[in-house]
Amino acid sequence: MSTFGTLFRVTTFGESHCASVGAIIDGCPPGLQLSAADIQVQMNRRRPGQSNLTTPRNEKDAVLLQSGLEHGVTLGTPIALLVRNEDQRPHDYSETDLYPRPSHADYTYLEKYGIKASSGGGRSSARETVGRVAAGAIAEHYLKIAYGIEIVAFVSSVGKVHLPMAAAVPATAEDDDDAAEPMSEEFRSLLAGVSRADVDAHLTRCPHPETAARMEKRIIRAKDALDSIGGTVTCVLRNLPSGLGEPVFDKFEAKLAHAMLSIPATKGFEIGSGFRGTEVPGSRHNDAFVRRADGSLGTQTNWSGGVQGGITNREDVYFRVAFKPPATISQAQATAQYDGTQGSLAARGRHDPCVVPRAVPIVEAMAALVVMDLLLIQNSRQAAAGRLPPITTLPATMVMPPRV
Amino acid sequence: MSTFGTLFRVTTFGESHCASVGAIIDGCPPGLQLSAADIQVQMNRRRPGQSNLTTPRNEKDAVLLQSGLEHGVTLGTPIALLVRNEDQRPHDYSETDLYPRPSHADYTYLEKYGIKASSGGGRSSARETVGRVAAGAIAEHYLKIAYGIEIVAFVSSVGKVHLPMAAAVPATAEDDDDAAEPMSEEFRSLLAGVSRADVDAHLTRCPHPETAARMEKRIIRAKDALDSIGGTVTCVLRNLPSGLGEPVFDKFEAKLAHAMLSIPATKGFEIGSGFRGTEVPGSRHNDAFVRRADGSLGTQTNWSGGVQGGITNREDVYFRVAFKPPATISQAQATAQYDGTQGSLAARGRHDPCVVPRAVPIVEAMAALVVMDLLLIQNSRQAAAGRLPPITTLPATMVMPPRV
Amino acid sequence: MSTFGTLFRVTTFGESHCASVGAIIDGCPPGLQLSAADIQVQMNRRRPGQSNLTTPRNEKDAVLLQSGLEHGVTLGTPIALLVRNEDQRPHDYSETDLYPRPSHADYTYLEKYGIKASSGGGRSSARETVGRVAAGAIAEHYLKIAYGIEIVAFVSSVGKVHLPMAAAVPATAEDDDDAAEPMSEEFRSLLAGVSRADVDAHLTRCPHPETAARMEKRIIRAKDALDSIGGTVTCVLRNLPSGLGEPVFDKFEAKLAHAMLSIPATKGFEIGSGFRGTEVPGSRHNDAFVRRADGSLGTQTNWSGGVQGGITNREDVYFRVAFKPPATISQAQATAQYDGTQGSLAARGRHDPCVVPRAVPIVEAMAALVVMDLLLIQNSRQAAAGRLPPITTLPATMVMPPRV
Amino acid sequence: MSTFGTLFRVTTFGESHCASVGAIIDGCPPGLQLSAADIQVQMNRRRPGQSNLTTPRNEKDAVLLQSGLEHGVTLGTPIALLVRNEDQRPHDYSETDLYPRPSHADYTYLEKYGIKASSGGGRSSARETVGRVAAGAIAEHYLKIAYGIEIVAFVSSVGKVHLPMAAAVPATAEDDDDAAEPMSEEFRSLLAGVSRADVDAHLTRCPHPETAARMEKRIIRAKDALDSIGGTVTCVLRNLPSGLGEPVFDKFEAKLAHAMLSIPATKGFEIGSGFRGTEVPGSRHNDAFVRRADGSLGTQTNWSGGVQGGITNREDVYFRVAFKPPATISQAQATAQYDGTQGSLAARGRHDPCVVPRAVPIVEAMAALVVMDLLLIQNSRQAAAGRLPPITTLPATMVMPPRV
Repeated sequence: MSTFGTLFRVTTFGESHCASVGAIIDGCPPGLQLSAADIQVQMNRRRPGQSNLTTPRNEKDAVLLQSGLEHGVTLGTPIALLVRNEDQRPHDYSETDLYPRPSHADYTYLEKYGIKASSGGGRSSARETVGRVAAGAIAEHYLKIAYGIEIVAFVSSVGKVHLPMAAAVPATAEDDDDAAEPMSEEFRSLLAGVSRADVDAHLTRCPHPETAARMEKRIIRAKDALDSIGGTVTCVLRNLPSGLGEPVFDKFEAKLAHAMLSIPATKGFEIGSGFRGTEVPGSRHNDAFVRRADGSLGTQTNWSGGVQGGITNREDVYFRVAFKPPATISQAQATAQYDGTQGSLAARGRHDPCVVPRAVPIVEAMAALVVMDLLLIQNSRQAAAGRLPPITTLPATMVMPPRV
Repeated sequence: MSTFGTLFRVTTFGESHCASVGAIIDGCPPGLQLSAADIQVQMNRRRPGQSNLTTPRNEKDAVLLQSGLEHGVTLGTPIALLVRNEDQRPHDYSETDLYPRPSHADYTYLEKYGIKASSGGGRSSARETVGRVAAGAIAEHYLKIAYGIEIVAFVSSVGKVHLPMAAAVPATAEDDDDAAEPMSEEFRSLLAGVSRADVDAHLTRCPHPETAARMEKRIIRAKDALDSIGGTVTCVLRNLPSGLGEPVFDKFEAKLAHAMLSIPATKGFEIGSGFRGTEVPGSRHNDAFVRRADGSLGTQTNWSGGVQGGITNREDVYFRVAFKPPATISQAQATAQYDGTQGSLAARGRHDPCVVPRAVPIVEAMAALVVMDLLLIQNSRQAAAGRLPPITTLPATMVMPPRV
Repeated sequence: MSTFGTLFRVTTFGESHCASVGAIIDGCPPGLQLSAADIQVQMNRRRPGQSNLTTPRNEKDAVLLQSGLEHGVTLGTPIALLVRNEDQRPHDYSETDLYPRPSHADYTYLEKYGIKASSGGGRSSARETVGRVAAGAIAEHYLKIAYGIEIVAFVSSVGKVHLPMAAAVPATAEDDDDAAEPMSEEFRSLLAGVSRADVDAHLTRCPHPETAARMEKRIIRAKDALDSIGGTVTCVLRNLPSGLGEPVFDKFEAKLAHAMLSIPATKGFEIGSGFRGTEVPGSRHNDAFVRRADGSLGTQTNWSGGVQGGITNREDVYFRVAFKPPATISQAQATAQYDGTQGSLAARGRHDPCVVPRAVPIVEAMAALVVMDLLLIQNSRQAAAGRLPPITTLPATMVMPPRV
Repeated sequence: MSTFGTLFRVTTFGESHCASVGAIIDGCPPGLQLSAADIQVQMNRRRPGQSNLTTPRNEKDAVLLQSGLEHGVTLGTPIALLVRNEDQRPHDYSETDLYPRPSHADYTYLEKYGIKASSGGGRSSARETVGRVAAGAIAEHYLKIAYGIEIVAFVSSVGKVHLPMAAAVPATAEDDDDAAEPMSEEFRSLLAGVSRADVDAHLTRCPHPETAARMEKRIIRAKDALDSIGGTVTCVLRNLPSGLGEPVFDKFEAKLAHAMLSIPATKGFEIGSGFRGTEVPGSRHNDAFVRRADGSLGTQTNWSGGVQGGITNREDVYFRVAFKPPATISQAQATAQYDGTQGSLAARGRHDPCVVPRAVPIVEAMAALVVMDLLLIQNSRQAAAGRLPPITTLPATMVMPPRV
């Protein structure tokens, strides 16, 4: 439904043509300094009309905070926020309304609800993500201040234009080739250091200049052809504490996958070595433990993507999300009308030829919501366990030994 | 946590060395004829020791039904079931207990709980999936009887040995190549017809004989090398009604992704065209609508994987899940002890060199749980909407027109 | 937290001095004709300033619908609504802010959150109930249209002034007196027939003229004494289908009790014969079954209050809710300041001397939310069971026999 | 459904005649020393056959722990436990099966599920409470060790035999009588000091010897008359921290009410002054703040019952629960059969003439579950807020001033 989270809960509302879209965020820690500007920065990154690579519709998307704060400090009570829809008129009837748009949600919304918004797929609109991004901005604001957690997403491919990472594993059909590494050195160092400034330095939000230029070219080609193209977004989470993720159903990666696949137009998710990791033998894939400078344990490699057994291990978490090519294209498509009549449909207006640049802050937002919620749950456990007297009779294998 | 689902809720329990593992299934429809044998068939497919490709440990895994049935019929009350652990002795202390196993959950469980089962990663053991498979068998039993829904999973790759599907898209670096199709014709027809009998005809559970033979060879090679290898499982859901999936956060694919990434050793999920679909332009990727024989709308292609806007459209749903190579291998690995001392660890005993054959019924089980729960929620909406008088004043664009 | 319900979910927001208060209603059936006026009618009944028995603050409380509807019909998507706070200025600092108000939430909010709204108890304000009443109005609008369900609440006592019901059981200390009935005949007929028009015919919202007059006198006496007085609200639900309520934790009465005790100022809940029923022997208290005119089973008496085993039985549900005297009174009270200094506090401004008249629509709203949610869940079960083939082999004791 | 709680979650299963009854407890803090004996003590207090006041059926009810512990210490993973049913044979068909028992759940279970256990009301059996009591025993074991929290319930009335508390308020019809106090001094001191040993010193579990003797007489009279009688249980929670309870829907008293009304045979709940408090003016009812010896704030009186605005204030919480007379009585009752035929039914076997003595540990268990869950949630908030830097710019009215 429209609520996400257990202790940090986000409930969103709104379609394309109603009065406003927005969200209620329940469970925000009290005592957090927060302004509309802290939220607006991510809203602006999500907004259409940022470049000639995205739709020219220019919405202002100004966040209006309704509750849960006083004097710029959170009260611990629900924070409601909304963003007005500039154009609230119900969609006018037109010839193209005879058709369910191929690979869009017009048809399935109608099948599900027996009714649909005149604008089409109702809540499947990208407009729905406004509430998510605002909520995620609040979560990451807390995570940054309280834990120094960094969340950075970037475009890792557009069509067949991939970051160098993609070239690292030769797609050989030779069954015996065990030599490949699941991730290139270049990619590893990108994950470790990439910042939002690096990402925003390019219209495509790919922080690798040479690849970014090729991606831009690819998107413009799709646009010129009245067509669209898909892509992937990679996201890295740094400085996470260990212990996040709730076995067995709410493993860290399970909640992340849920969150990511709830974003419109997504078709896939992988964490750490992901699908490529399936091709590698365990002896290469395992992340050996090493002693860190501070005496704690880390891992030498990180094919696990910061998660083992569904629980974070303090290494960086990184994952990748697949976005299909936008379904709405301006070229004519042969397709059937609602009543079954065969015909041809060409979408009017102008549309994003590629969603991944704008998807970057949405991926970050959903990641922040997952981290925030699992952090609150783990906090609770640790506080509860911390009230118990130490148990001195357990076998050594059941507790953490002192560091040498 | 350990509960999955909203109306059809499964709660599992159990570690490797406790008295039993099992589950409570709450929300099963009343009046369903169900026997332990209906459940046992999937339990047996999950069980270790089925071939020389899997671990030789031979557990009986007999399901003991505790409640919720009388005279072989469900009462609508919680069904508790358990499977005894044959070996309930806590794990003996040994030299290898000094080490957290690389890429296993020993370390993260200890970080999370401050204590761990003497056997290691506690609930991260594959033993935990016993409860899921049993619960899933009940769900699919209902779905088969009530809707004729079919759920079939199979092994689609082991290491670099892929079903022909994988070869369909040349991994060219040419940005301009739009010609590729995301799925081969051969794969499409496999999805349409594959049965569990086809799958079980091969030890690897790959229903494509030539590929199955290569996979078997690959697994044996890993075994002989005291190593392990990953793979993927593909699953198809047939005869689903349209309208399943709860926007915006509980989209059908979001719940599926959550379910799949909660299975031990999984690293990725993709639905429909998945990651490959990101490389294809929208004009090729869109699934045009066509009139079906019965007058309803279907789609000509199915790159969407049966889901549009997070809601099923009556086409087959298919998705793929990535399993990493098992972390437990018998060859020696250089790694640190809990206390930071550097050393070398070799796992004792024998272990699955590849989990995907045994993962097949687990993937099916989790898919069944997702379908069941979303079906119950959509049933509720339809029943509620069905009590309302028809509204005659709505614009034509908001309701389904009569078929021509 | 701030969300109530499983399938019909209400999430509220807002304090006294923020921009607005409101709610998101998720899970409303699609295809329901609904206007702001359908909601406003209950909002107006909740509003302060309706008579000289309530606080003179005159808020307009106009509901602004934000989403989830088009052309006056629900889309099945979240309905967001808000009501602006007329006075959004944070509360000015004053001498009385040194004191936590006795029996108010100022102190506990501060203890819980470490911070509090400058206006005091934050979400404990009666202002918070705006979102509940609006959501409840939508629920009961559906229930009325789809099932003919009627929900009527009324004031059953103010201080010691009770409806005749209360006089029916002599409060004798004789242990052996088994003769008393838990409910008077007059009260029984009131439950069967009372309408909202009957209730609103009196300022006190007590539909019994003679009692209403005495109540009014009692409230005015409290007001004149700069004091306050408590009371009870009784509510009856008519035309409920059987089968509502989810054993074992979400029994119909358990959800009702939860809902009622979540209303500000409530201290008690009883259903059917309630506390009085504990004094009666089973032979008198049991509700014998009788054949109804339509051949179905009903009960001769209804001490159960329409619920048996946590499940509705088609008889009227009735329950009573206790409201304490309002904590905010204008007379001086000896009490300590936040810092522990002993002193004296007199509330400024004017306040409701008795909340029960205004509580009537709030009780109705919360009852509607409970019924709606449990109805949707039971609908789902019935639809699921209805897809199964009939089972012919069950013992006769396990199924409903044909009517004679 | 059959799960209760958000972070400390209990899921129960089992009917009267199935293989076993039990529960899964998820979310128990790790590192807690726990033995079966810790649980068994409350199981034994719940068990039938403890005296001639209860049913002579003598079940052993030995708890079998299945998972979640090793070496007698909790792992933080789900604790499954079960208790075998001694008599697992489905109920034999008999003449009395033609009748739905009046005020029992036979009829409503059949209406809800379309099928019922041959034994009758299925999960409405008191046997279902086995899982609750076991789960509650674990919760209170933690609460005692970690916080010193004490939970003591006792029988406060049987039929018209009440603890002296009940006599304190003359049930006068004089509207002007404001003099009454809602609670007697004797009762107040009972709440402050009563222990489980005091309670168990009497068969009736009423810790007031003179009243206990009268109660026992009253129960025996019911038994001799082949009849039954109701009663109330009062429960006090001591040493609770402040800040528990989640506004607005999950207020402390709302969760308690939910928990209590989910116990079989309950008809009412009141906290603090409860229904009596509605008759008292605010000037008398308000709990003035006073400085405690340790400098913190307490209240002089405690009509609030330890809760203000839905949040605990560190004063004792006390509440009362109404239990109806057991529906199953041996004397003949005129009532209709399932098929509508009028007839007469007399229950066979022997039954509890009064449930309140055995209800005492069930009330304690449910109270422990509520406290535990709300404590974990508040712990989470405090830990999260504790990571934030102090805010120095807030108005003095929004933060706690230093103690004088």
